[in-house]
Amino acid sequence: MNPSKQEIEAILDKAQLAFVETKAKAIDERLTLMHAVADEIEALGPELIAVAGEESNLPEGRLVGEKARTVFQWRSYAEALKRGDSLDASIDTANAERTPPKPDLRKTNIPLGPVAVFGASNFPFAFSTAGGDTASAFAAGCPVVVKGHPGHPKTSTMMAQAIARGVAKSGFPKGMFSHVLSNSYEAGQWLVTHPVIKAVGFTGSYQGGMALVELGNNRPDPIPVFAEMGSINPVFLLEEKLKLSGAELATAYVGSLTLGVGQFCTNPGLLVAVDGPELDAFIESLTTAIEGAAPAMMLHEGIAKNYLHNKELVTSQEGVEILARAAREASEGQGSPTVASVMGTEFLHNEHLQEEVFGPFALVVKCKDAQEMEQVAARLKGQLTCTLLGTEADLTQYARLIAQVQIKCGRILFNNFPTGVEVVKSMHHGGPFPAASDGRFTSVGADAIKRFTRPFSYQNWPDALLPDELKNANPLGIYRMVDNVRSTAPIA
Amino acid sequence: MNPSKQEIEAILDKAQLAFVETKAKAIDERLTLMHAVADEIEALGPELIAVAGEESNLPEGRLVGEKARTVFQWRSYAEALKRGDSLDASIDTANAERTPPKPDLRKTNIPLGPVAVFGASNFPFAFSTAGGDTASAFAAGCPVVVKGHPGHPKTSTMMAQAIARGVAKSGFPKGMFSHVLSNSYEAGQWLVTHPVIKAVGFTGSYQGGMALVELGNNRPDPIPVFAEMGSINPVFLLEEKLKLSGAELATAYVGSLTLGVGQFCTNPGLLVAVDGPELDAFIESLTTAIEGAAPAMMLHEGIAKNYLHNKELVTSQEGVEILARAAREASEGQGSPTVASVMGTEFLHNEHLQEEVFGPFALVVKCKDAQEMEQVAARLKGQLTCTLLGTEADLTQYARLIAQVQIKCGRILFNNFPTGVEVVKSMHHGGPFPAASDGRFTSVGADAIKRFTRPFSYQNWPDALLPDELKNANPLGIYRMVDNVRSTAPIA
Repeated sequence: MNPSKQEIEAILDKAQLAFVETKAKAIDERLTLMHAVADEIEALGPELIAVAGEESNLPEGRLVGEKARTVFQWRSYAEALKRGDSLDASIDTANAERTPPKPDLRKTNIPLGPVAVFGASNFPFAFSTAGGDTASAFAAGCPVVVKGHPGHPKTSTMMAQAIARGVAKSGFPKGMFSHVLSNSYEAGQWLVTHPVIKAVGFTGSYQGGMALVELGNNRPDPIPVFAEMGSINPVFLLEEKLKLSGAELATAYVGSLTLGVGQFCTNPGLLVAVDGPELDAFIESLTTAIEGAAPAMMLHEGIAKNYLHNKELVTSQEGVEILARAAREASEGQGSPTVASVMGTEFLHNEHLQEEVFGPFALVVKCKDAQEMEQVAARLKGQLTCTLLGTEADLTQYARLIAQVQIKCGRILFNNFPTGVEVVKSMHHGGPFPAASDGRFTSVGADAIKRFTRPFSYQNWPDALLPDELKNANPLGIYRMVDNVRSTAPIA
Repeated sequence: MNPSKQEIEAILDKAQLAFVETKAKAIDERLTLMHAVADEIEALGPELIAVAGEESNLPEGRLVGEKARTVFQWRSYAEALKRGDSLDASIDTANAERTPPKPDLRKTNIPLGPVAVFGASNFPFAFSTAGGDTASAFAAGCPVVVKGHPGHPKTSTMMAQAIARGVAKSGFPKGMFSHVLSNSYEAGQWLVTHPVIKAVGFTGSYQGGMALVELGNNRPDPIPVFAEMGSINPVFLLEEKLKLSGAELATAYVGSLTLGVGQFCTNPGLLVAVDGPELDAFIESLTTAIEGAAPAMMLHEGIAKNYLHNKELVTSQEGVEILARAAREASEGQGSPTVASVMGTEFLHNEHLQEEVFGPFALVVKCKDAQEMEQVAARLKGQLTCTLLGTEADLTQYARLIAQVQIKCGRILFNNFPTGVEVVKSMHHGGPFPAASDGRFTSVGADAIKRFTRPFSYQNWPDALLPDELKNANPLGIYRMVDNVRSTAPIA
C-alpha cells in the first residue's frame, strides 16, 4: 500500500526491462501467456465472488457473469491475435527492375511499450485489474502496471496475483505485470509521467480521465491516454413507434435504466421525443415502472453521494420537473430510480442538462416537433451510444436526425438498449469527446488491442530476422496483404 | 490572400455542410472524386512545373517525378478504398437463442469530419496542397481546408484549382475543398481551433508542428493533429560491413545525404560506427565524396539561413570537428554539403547534437565499442527511420543494438538508404515522438487514410439503411470479418 516514488520507479524499470526482453518472444508465446492468465482467473473460486461482493455491493449472479466475461476477454483477444487481426501484417515485395529499384517493405504492429492501467469501480473484474485494458495490452505485447481501484483493493489484489501466476507459468519475466495500491493522487501521476510508460488505459469519470490526459499531453514526449469517461446515451423515441408500442417500450426502457443500479457508462440517461398525448401515455407507463422499481445499494458511498448531488444539480435547473421516483424509500448508500422531464427549448440553451448523473436517473426531453429533435441532437456532446426507437418508416422519415445523431456517437442502436456491451470485434465502445478522450479507439472487443500498438516497417530486412508474421513462409498462417492482395499464401 | 476571421468561418461552415451532405454518398462516388482529382492534376502541363520550379528552386526532373508520385497517391488511395482496406468492415451476426439474445453488430470506419491541412515546402506537390494529407482525407470522406504554404503560393493555387475542378466534375459540393492563402499566424490558429475541424495534417518543423498540436490539445474538444516533424535518421555502420565495403558505402551514403540538397525529413544526418582504422578509411572516402559534392540552391532563403544557423549550432558544440566541406564555395541561398564528427562520449551527454540540421549535413559519431553504440541508440529521440549497414553476421552480433534501435523508429532499413519513401501499404512514414506527434499513424501509403476515420458500430440496424460495406449482400465485394472469419461472401 502507498509505495514511495522510488518504489514505483523500481517497478517501472522492471517493466521496461521486461519490454525489451520480451520483444523477441514470438506471437505463440504471447498466446500461451494470455490463456495462462485466463486459466488462473477461471480457477479463482467463490472466495473471489465473496470478496468482490463485499467490496462492490454487486450481487453474486452479476459477479459470476462478469468473471466469465473477463475470462472470455482474455481468450477472445488471444484468438484475435492468433488470427493476426491486430497485426495488420502487410508486405510489398521488391522490384529490382524498376528505376530506382523498389525495395522490399513489410509492416506489422509492434507493442508501444509499458502501459499504465487505471481500473473502474463499476466492473471490478471486466474493467479493472484483470480487465480489458490489461488483456489488450498483453495481447499487444506490452508490460502492464495497474493502479488498483481503491474501491476494491482486495479484489484487485486477488486478480493481480492470478495475473502474476499466469506470467510466471508461461515463462515471461516478472516485470510483465505489476500491481500498485495507493490512496495518493501522486502515485498515478508518477506512473503517467514516467518516461518508461508509453500509453495509459482508464475507465471512469470525466474529471479523473482528463487529469490523466493532461498529464499525458504535457510530458516531454506526449503519450496516448485512452480514457473512457461515460456519457448520457440519448434515446430518440420516434413518432410511429411511440404511437404503436409506447407502453411496452416504457417498461423495457426502465429495465435498461435501472439495470445494475444504473451504474453503467452506457446507461440511457436521456430520452428525447415529440410532445403530445402519445408521449403523455408513454410517461404514464414510465411513471408506473419507475415507482415500482426498487432502490438498491450503489458501488460505494462516494458514488451514492455523487448520484444524489448530480441528480440535484440537473433537477434544480430551470424548467426541470420530476416525473417519478421509486415508491420505496432509499436507505443510506442506495440509489433511487428517478425520472424528470424538461422542454426541448430549455435543453437547447442549458448545458447542465447534459451532465452525466451516474445512477438510475433519466431526463425526458419533450420536443415540440421533429425539427426540435434535430436541434437537440445537434447540441449533444459526444456519446458512447445513441439509440433510435422507431419503425422502419420512422427511420426513413427521420433521416436528417439520424445523420446528425451519427456524428455524435460511437455506436447507434435500433430498437435495442445500450447497456449490454458485447465483447466482439464489431463492437465500438468509445465515442467522440467527451465520451472518450480518443473516439478512434475502442476499449471493448479485440480491436482494443490496437490501442497499444504502433505500425513498424522493415525495409530489405533479412527474412530470418523478420517477426513470424512477416516471414516469407507465413509460419503463423495468417491473412496478410501481399502486394495489395489479401492472402494466407507463403511468398515464393 | 489573408482572409479575415469571418471569411475563414464562412469557409468552415461550408465544409461542415459538405460533410453532412456527403455522408450519405456511397464509396463509389468517393472513388470517382479521387480519380477526378487525379485526372485534373495529371492534366496540369509544363506551366505547373515551371511555376513550381520558380517557387521552390527544385529541378524540372525532380518536379516531374513528384507530380507523377502525387497522381499515384490519389489513385492508389482510391484503390485501397475500393478494396475496403481503410474500412476494416466487420460483422458479428445475431444469436436469438442466447440468454440474453446476442444483437447484430456491424462496424466500419467513418470520416472524422472536416480536416485542416498544412503543407510542407520541400514537396510542393506530394506533401502540399494536393498531397498525401488531402488525398487521404478525401479517401476517408472528409472535406479539406488547406492553408497553402507561403513558400509556393502560385503552385498551391494551381493545385487548389485542379482539386476544385475534380470536386465539381464528380458532383460533390463546393465545400468539400477550400484553399486559404495567408501570411498571418492567426489564420492557421482559426482553422485548428474552430469546432468544425476534427483533425489536422501537417508536415514541417518541430516548432510549427508542436504549435498546432498544442492548439489541438487545448480545444474544449481536443482533436488529433498529425504532425510529421522530421528527424536525423541515424545510420549504424556495423563492424564487418565497415571492413568489407567501407569505401563504396561512403559514396552511396553521401549520395543519399546530398539528394535534393538534403531537404528530406528522412535525410540520414547521423552516422554511428566504432572508431578505428576501418572508420578512418571510411571517413577518408566520405571526405573525398563530400568535397566533390556540389552546393545547390535550397528551397527558399529562410531554409538556407536555418541550415547555416543549425549547422553552426551543432558544429560549435564541444568536441565536434568538421571533417569535410564541399570544395566549391556556396553562393547565397545554396546549401553546402558538410560532414562533422564527435566522440560517442560527447554525444551521450549533449542533446544539442541530436538537433535536426535540415540540409546536406551529417554528424559522424565515433564510438569506442559496440556497447557504446548501444548507449547511443538508447539515448536517441524518436526517429522516422534508422538504418543498419551490415553483413548478416553483423545483424546477429548486434542483436541488442537492433532491439534498442527498433524502439526508437518507425522504419528500419538494412543496407539501403532512407531517403526514398515508397507509396505502398507497407510503408510506415511516422515514428515515435518527436519524429511525429503521433507515431501510431503513417502519412505515406494508403494506411494514411486511417488518420481521418473513426470506427462506428451499428447495432440491430436495418440492412437497407446500412452503408454498402456492411450490407448482407456485400455489394462492394470487399473482404470483411464475419463472425471472426475473413470473407467476401454475402450473408444469407
